[in-house]
Amino acid sequence: MKILILGNDGYIGYPLTIHLLKLGHEVCGVDNYSRRRRVAALGSNSLTPIDIQEGRMSYFRDTFKNFAGQSRISLGTDSPAYIKSLIRLFQPNAIVHLAEQPSAPWSMKDVQYANVTQRENILGTLDILWAIHEVCPEAHLVKLGTMGEYGTPNCDIPEGVIPEECIGDLLTDNDCPMAGLLFPRTPGSFYHLTKVHDTLNIHFACRNWGMRSTDIMQGVLFGLNEPDDESLLTRFDYDECFGTVINRFCAQALIGHPLTVYGTGDQKRGFLPLKDSLQCITLALKQPPALGEYRTLNQFENVYSINTLAGMVAKGCELPVEISHIPNPRLEAEDHYYNPDHQTLFNMGYVPTTDIQGEITNLLNQLLPHKGRVIKESIMPKTNWR
Amino acid sequence: MKILILGNDGYIGYPLTIHLLKLGHEVCGVDNYSRRRRVAALGSNSLTPIDIQEGRMSYFRDTFKNFAGQSRISLGTDSPAYIKSLIRLFQPNAIVHLAEQPSAPWSMKDVQYANVTQRENILGTLDILWAIHEVCPEAHLVKLGTMGEYGTPNCDIPEGVIPEECIGDLLTDNDCPMAGLLFPRTPGSFYHLTKVHDTLNIHFACRNWGMRSTDIMQGVLFGLNEPDDESLLTRFDYDECFGTVINRFCAQALIGHPLTVYGTGDQKRGFLPLKDSLQCITLALKQPPALGEYRTLNQFENVYSINTLAGMVAKGCELPVEISHIPNPRLEAEDHYYNPDHQTLFNMGYVPTTDIQGEITNLLNQLLPHKGRVIKESIMPKTNWR
Repeated sequence: MKILILGNDGYIGYPLTIHLLKLGHEVCGVDNYSRRRRVAALGSNSLTPIDIQEGRMSYFRDTFKNFAGQSRISLGTDSPAYIKSLIRLFQPNAIVHLAEQPSAPWSMKDVQYANVTQRENILGTLDILWAIHEVCPEAHLVKLGTMGEYGTPNCDIPEGVIPEECIGDLLTDNDCPMAGLLFPRTPGSFYHLTKVHDTLNIHFACRNWGMRSTDIMQGVLFGLNEPDDESLLTRFDYDECFGTVINRFCAQALIGHPLTVYGTGDQKRGFLPLKDSLQCITLALKQPPALGEYRTLNQFENVYSINTLAGMVAKGCELPVEISHIPNPRLEAEDHYYNPDHQTLFNMGYVPTTDIQGEITNLLNQLLPHKGRVIKESIMPKTNWR
Repeated sequence: MKILILGNDGYIGYPLTIHLLKLGHEVCGVDNYSRRRRVAALGSNSLTPIDIQEGRMSYFRDTFKNFAGQSRISLGTDSPAYIKSLIRLFQPNAIVHLAEQPSAPWSMKDVQYANVTQRENILGTLDILWAIHEVCPEAHLVKLGTMGEYGTPNCDIPEGVIPEECIGDLLTDNDCPMAGLLFPRTPGSFYHLTKVHDTLNIHFACRNWGMRSTDIMQGVLFGLNEPDDESLLTRFDYDECFGTVINRFCAQALIGHPLTVYGTGDQKRGFLPLKDSLQCITLALKQPPALGEYRTLNQFENVYSINTLAGMVAKGCELPVEISHIPNPRLEAEDHYYNPDHQTLFNMGYVPTTDIQGEITNLLNQLLPHKGRVIKESIMPKTNWR
């Protein structure tokens, strides 16, 4: 299969590129390396000592005959003609779109950060939709959204649309008159909003143009890839903006910093290890939807509270770990119902990593040799939602 | 009251400025005059011979002591600092935001038009939200959305959110578990999508920052203002992009062109005369929501089919009028259920113009002296949804 990966220098994109190249797919990459610059601008770094971009490209070129090349394009900023030209040239069967600004706190810093986030994410995806429509209308768009699109409503959360029948105690009575409409989204930051805007734009493109797309509502990721050579490790962010919660806890545990739980820690979210994300994206690529179909996958292993995860990190660390509750910089429900459906990926063959404690312990061991790289000052939240 | 009108050179914005100045409010205007340029670029014009922008400004200055000035700002394109400075300086009690690219066909022409539409509308509104939050957090944002945000779902349409109880036969059973969530939107163009994106951004700003906003889901407008002096007429577009359906029919009727109904003409929409829109916006301004409240108003007089309206235009015209069905350039349901709620404005005191036939007949008479200005070539649709 010919696969174009947008954002292939990122946390998911880089190991996904290796994974799909190893499976024999012809892979082309696009990145603007903004994550590298933005993490540096925050005064932080990747905990793992990642290779420079030229080094990664040389590895792809030297190792895989099926590596089709790498382009530097800033989606949503560069002219739409750039990405269209590339797609016309490569004629991908599938496009995996991971090239968005992925941080909620970053988007809440001030109007400039919010503006850049909404411009890059919304217009970047819009330009891709037009390019697919115009030059490869049968390609499968696999787009990364977030479980955060739904927020934490006081009812069950289906996969994408309001179902015909109950999926639990709460969602709907049978024969819901709104069945088939998109389930209402209540996102909690200007970043999360971009993912909802993307969802609506993609949903329209499928309805109007007969495009096919898999829109992945991904839970919170954690962990590393497990490459043969340490130079092939993916990046690992732990700063207040780009570090996801388990990864941030692990960095804190390693340097003897208290694990900083925002608020009560009773917030519940869906989580999954990075390797499960690669597995799920690969499953989506192998089983594309029909032309005209807009498919949503809620992608996570299981739901955990932040307190539970902090406990797992503490347990997995050989050193004594303190857990500290700090005022929540975000405006979010801390005590809430949370029951999202996530059956579709299991039906498609997803075999989840159920031993999350084992994964976290293993992650701490992977990170241990690099703990001297942690820049302590970048961890604590400085961005307040209000 | 100090009112900032964004888009005050437009179809609604110009007569609204006069209306609010006459009511004694202190009014400040913002426009970038893009509508004038874009209509000209399509090879069309305003059927009414509107004054140049400097003439309008002189009229405001010379006639009203309470006119606070006029700025040229391109929302969503200029730096967010521009609109923030103006809002900080003027300290409005209310901001009426009409400054968006308002045409669905224009947004569907190609990627550049779609991209400009989404950038201007989404980022323009985003910048305004941040400015209000930072420099006048108690101001009331009155934002123009569209009934087209909802699309034509096969159930009743509430005002904004899913209600606790049924509002008709279809919508929900009692105790809907999704009550209070935003009613799902199914918009039909990249333009309509921007209004939904705005809705979600505004809804978040109200939840997160405690802002107050009235988000107006406006039906399709038609008609003119009725000024004392003809030089104060508002613009009247009839081209394929910026002309709304009744206005386009009237222009066609006047020059003996068949009324071009798209498809079967059984499409149903909510409509209202321009003067009713001014009345409703004024009601919203006088009765602001509480801080933190996101209020939706479905703003239209009543629902009509396109065929009914074509019949009214034909009846209102003294000349014989032919009605012609042409292939629908849009992808939309032509035979559909449509029952949107619109009770809130009536509860607030809206006295609608119920004699739509009379309004249309009167409009045709207002336009008659200017029928020589119609550029016939700009009427027929050239933009196809596919």
